Amino acid sequence: MRLHATWLLLLSFAVAAQPLVVEKQRFTLDTFTTANGQVIAPVNIGWEAYGKLNADKSNVILITHFFSGSSHAAGKYQADDAAPGYWDAIIGPGKAIDTNKFYVISSDTLVNANVFDSNVITTGPASINPATNKPYGLSFPVVTIGDFVEVQKALLDSLGIEKLHAVIGPSMGSFQAIEWAVRYPDKVQRLIPVIGSAYMDTYSVIKLQRWAYPILQDPEWNNGNYYDKGQPWQGLSTALAYITQDALHPDGFNPRYPAISADTELHQHIDAQPLAWQQLLAQARLRAEKQDANHILYLVRASQLWRAGMADNWQQAVSRISAKTLFLPASGDLLLPPALSKHSEQAMTAAGNTPQYAEIPGNFGHLDGVVGISAVADKITALLD
Amino acid sequence: MRLHATWLLLLSFAVAAQPLVVEKQRFTLDTFTTANGQVIAPVNIGWEAYGKLNADKSNVILITHFFSGSSHAAGKYQADDAAPGYWDAIIGPGKAIDTNKFYVISSDTLVNANVFDSNVITTGPASINPATNKPYGLSFPVVTIGDFVEVQKALLDSLGIEKLHAVIGPSMGSFQAIEWAVRYPDKVQRLIPVIGSAYMDTYSVIKLQRWAYPILQDPEWNNGNYYDKGQPWQGLSTALAYITQDALHPDGFNPRYPAISADTELHQHIDAQPLAWQQLLAQARLRAEKQDANHILYLVRASQLWRAGMADNWQQAVSRISAKTLFLPASGDLLLPPALSKHSEQAMTAAGNTPQYAEIPGNFGHLDGVVGISAVADKITALLD
Repeated sequence: MRLHATWLLLLSFAVAAQPLVVEKQRFTLDTFTTANGQVIAPVNIGWEAYGKLNADKSNVILITHFFSGSSHAAGKYQADDAAPGYWDAIIGPGKAIDTNKFYVISSDTLVNANVFDSNVITTGPASINPATNKPYGLSFPVVTIGDFVEVQKALLDSLGIEKLHAVIGPSMGSFQAIEWAVRYPDKVQRLIPVIGSAYMDTYSVIKLQRWAYPILQDPEWNNGNYYDKGQPWQGLSTALAYITQDALHPDGFNPRYPAISADTELHQHIDAQPLAWQQLLAQARLRAEKQDANHILYLVRASQLWRAGMADNWQQAVSRISAKTLFLPASGDLLLPPALSKHSEQAMTAAGNTPQYAEIPGNFGHLDGVVGISAVADKITALLD
Repeated sequence: MRLHATWLLLLSFAVAAQPLVVEKQRFTLDTFTTANGQVIAPVNIGWEAYGKLNADKSNVILITHFFSGSSHAAGKYQADDAAPGYWDAIIGPGKAIDTNKFYVISSDTLVNANVFDSNVITTGPASINPATNKPYGLSFPVVTIGDFVEVQKALLDSLGIEKLHAVIGPSMGSFQAIEWAVRYPDKVQRLIPVIGSAYMDTYSVIKLQRWAYPILQDPEWNNGNYYDKGQPWQGLSTALAYITQDALHPDGFNPRYPAISADTELHQHIDAQPLAWQQLLAQARLRAEKQDANHILYLVRASQLWRAGMADNWQQAVSRISAKTLFLPASGDLLLPPALSKHSEQAMTAAGNTPQYAEIPGNFGHLDGVVGISAVADKITALLD
């Protein structure tokens, strides 16, 4: 009897915890001019929303996604989806970003990595150029974090939304969030850059180039013209493997992959490859199915070019931010280490703002900004209140 | 007059600080059998020494070199050499490793990276196989840190040296130093692993594979058969560029390379490359002149296979060490981070040894184990006393 009651209680929790069912929507801009003066026509991006827009449209929170991510920040498309959106732990009814209060919008970026995922809508080098009826390939213009923001701005304009209660995003999403607050200080009331930075230091720019390198060196890449022959799988998988490793701290990485041992081919044959490497590449090859090599190159470039304000003085740019701000780096992050959030926070402080700063604990490094976000749920709630 | 006196004083310091003039010597083993049972005949390695061997040969300190290094640990070959050996700051008369007291021997490893440096003597895939009169290429056997140690052991045996006052080495040199203390606990009285580890974790093994990747993917590498056509320069330079970056902390790296700015090709052309990347590669290309792509692959493998004792339980292996031990990781090291030294020290402590542990401060990360070694000179002196 007691067991039965417990069971019912658990069941009621399970019902309460059932994720939102969400729907992908499409936003189309007939024509978009990039910061470089190039025209893309049309631009399509996907978006989804959680919660209800209130009457005066004052309860909007924008979520901006990370490099390998998409607009799927919370909920499930079907109740039996294997996993919900990446920040489902903090977005939903009664959660840190409470969809009983807020209307939460999340959008795909231009050149999204997962262009062949049926739940992603994006425009990039793999998209058909209506002028030629072929994929753009490298004729697609270089796009920047500023361009990502302008497309999102057009989406919000189309919905009649003029103020953002907050902009929140992890990693490359933090770049977009910060750029929102720099460009539209009167629209952005709160800003939470998670595992982020207001600029890319040279060290990080080079690390990003190392992600691009295996694609660029793969003969199958063929200068970006591979759409009729199939992707440069070797280069693409290797790039994705590097991204996986760089997003993890050794403490999170090591337990997942086999260590070197005595009875291995490696001791006998110089051309043998470590088992851990083989596994990492095999996992990356599976993910590669939904991704596009050129899109990775364009995302690398957009990230390399990132500095707040997109000009030569990011510190001056962040001085324009009026949003109440909370930086949330991850303590063990080796990709965008806490020092970058710290520098960003210090530049804002020097300009008279009063940003807050707290670190996300955990063993997964950069990835803790996604999988470990619950640890700072209360800090997010407090900033949003 | 006062100025003059100061000048004389400075001059006398300059004279006192003049480096040792050292000479490269050759050690030949007619035949050497690797841990895998492969025969290399002959093996040649270079070595140099600083100080004087005492009558009972009890004052010997062995220095083991890092991945990109050589036996040139101190002094100069010619008084007008641009720079002395890498640890000249701590090796010499009156220095931390005092050549007035100690006879310091430093030897080249097998498969040394700098095989085309006239001051390096090594045997590896670029060496001529007397059986074919052609370079070994990939027919050269996989060699391990254990093999490096056995060749050094043969060198010391040839000199009649039966005890080591200490074995000291940075990075891959720490692997050799630890293996010495594991294999020959009765011979090794003191052990100083600098920026080192008693094992390679899987995360580091994969990072090493990423150094090999550009070489393996370069068509000019041609499965290691390139000696009649010239090296795979692109792959080799890229590998060396990665090594440079990985050996540096961002705080040491960023000031050396240009940051992204607004007036760059990168904004206009997706196939443009960051200036910092171009500079890093150009510097690496210069270094590549003295190095060999296959040697890098063999050093990567030797490093990947490293764990104390070269079997499946490195913790058990380090329990055999009786040497008085001092671990000296660098605080900002992102290549072999302090955690690895800490784990090594903890395993020895658990086995009843009493290793010491101190961190090298600085902005250069792993490289602080070379360029910042003076900061821990007093700790080295204390252990040697």
